Amino acid sequence: MTVDPRLSINQATIKYADLATALKVTADAGVQSIGLWREPVNEVGLDTAAKMLADSGLRFSTHCRGGFFTLPEGPERRASLDDNRRAIDETAALAAAGAAGSTAVLVLVAGGLPEGSRDLIGARSRVHDALTELAPYAQDAGVTLAIEPLHPMFGSDRCVVSTLGQALDLAADFDPSVVGAAVDTFHIWWDPQVYEQIARAGREGRISTYQVCDWKTPLPADVLLSRHYMGDGVIDFASLTRAVVETGYDRDIEVEIFNADIWADAPESVVARTAEAFAATVSPHLP
Amino acid sequence: MTVDPRLSINQATIKYADLATALKVTADAGVQSIGLWREPVNEVGLDTAAKMLADSGLRFSTHCRGGFFTLPEGPERRASLDDNRRAIDETAALAAAGAAGSTAVLVLVAGGLPEGSRDLIGARSRVHDALTELAPYAQDAGVTLAIEPLHPMFGSDRCVVSTLGQALDLAADFDPSVVGAAVDTFHIWWDPQVYEQIARAGREGRISTYQVCDWKTPLPADVLLSRHYMGDGVIDFASLTRAVVETGYDRDIEVEIFNADIWADAPESVVARTAEAFAATVSPHLP
Repeated sequence: MTVDPRLSINQATIKYADLATALKVTADAGVQSIGLWREPVNEVGLDTAAKMLADSGLRFSTHCRGGFFTLPEGPERRASLDDNRRAIDETAALAAAGAAGSTAVLVLVAGGLPEGSRDLIGARSRVHDALTELAPYAQDAGVTLAIEPLHPMFGSDRCVVSTLGQALDLAADFDPSVVGAAVDTFHIWWDPQVYEQIARAGREGRISTYQVCDWKTPLPADVLLSRHYMGDGVIDFASLTRAVVETGYDRDIEVEIFNADIWADAPESVVARTAEAFAATVSPHLP
Repeated sequence: MTVDPRLSINQATIKYADLATALKVTADAGVQSIGLWREPVNEVGLDTAAKMLADSGLRFSTHCRGGFFTLPEGPERRASLDDNRRAIDETAALAAAGAAGSTAVLVLVAGGLPEGSRDLIGARSRVHDALTELAPYAQDAGVTLAIEPLHPMFGSDRCVVSTLGQALDLAADFDPSVVGAAVDTFHIWWDPQVYEQIARAGREGRISTYQVCDWKTPLPADVLLSRHYMGDGVIDFASLTRAVVETGYDRDIEVEIFNADIWADAPESVVARTAEAFAATVSPHLP
């Protein structure tokens, strides 16, 4: 099987593989690109991680993840913003180390309601405040911050940004090269406005990354792990992928799956199965 | 404790109570209104149920529920539409039997994607087709069909209508006395457009019912049962209730809770606890 040249394996899909393993199984499978997570990168240290990435010959598609900045002002918020600056630095270093065509994109998950709070509007405004504070730093580093709207079932405890339209509204005050949005099928497939918002994201130059995986019910007990291989669920990858392609988006497409059964499988098998699913569901709709 | 005169107990909150018990515990608690479900009504038969309701002295706020009409044309779709006509008849009969101030509102849950289908847009268009077919029948019966947007986590398997804005778009072709929307805090609290869509629903005369209960995480294994007493979760009932009140909505407000722990409790206790929670979270924001 030929692996689609635009497929990128998000490291969370093979969560239990360390960085060396993740890079090796991805490259060995003939996949050309990878999205990394901060924890395994920091486990080996950024310089070593960057060298390992360079040696792998893989492109770097995104760094996961920053964000979690809905807390009110105080030491915890300061610590979170400092941590986001480190994540920006990591993103820049890894993008520079990756093969030609790498992109310096840091995915941001906004964070949930602070403990005991019901002030969703306030939490959202603090997301905007955090972007205002981080944008100059990201711009200096040449990094794009990708606001990721998460499915509304995560709206209270994980991410107060729930739709692509809302992510674009938040991004509107910033240069598109500095603040964009992550378009992840799992999170937005249900949205009655999804096609108009994808088109808008394209017009506004804000599709920082396109990520795919499937939605299926019943949801598992931990709904965070309810992501599936493309084709195993109900998402219409044909229509969504064509909508993204029509905006001119021509970069890597990541597969990011959180799923306990898939994590329990051998990473080589997961990467192979991911490449097959991608070829069957996404590739036919690429130019 | 004085029970708020606008509180209505949706029968699903005391799911295991039969109709006689539901009516009795609701009236005995000093609650003035009840929303009924089709199954317990049909268990005793419509005529008997109507008489029991009249004898209870309670107002009737909604009938739950119709809908489930996303299937393509065929015998199953016909059976579903016929069943909706029966539900309309039931709604009219019960509203006539309830105390003064009863409302003839049938709540509609649209239904999910047909088995094996990924065509969300097609399913949604069949909801519109069903409304077109049912609206004259409902109008003749003096019944308002209330499209209920369900939380997007139910978007594939239960209800392809996921936002209040989408429900209003679907309703737009029909007279507001015939097709409206259910405004249920649990389903729409997360929506970045919730306040503008509540205001729009009011302007368009389409708030057919206002229902309250709370959202809390972690979600239980069966996410259908993740509804809570108001005040136990993160929903801002002050802002949402004021938004509904500002539209001029002045009818009953239902509490509808699906929760295994609450269902396991004695119905008298549940009604008392519901009345307390309502008084604490909703009543202060009513005129």
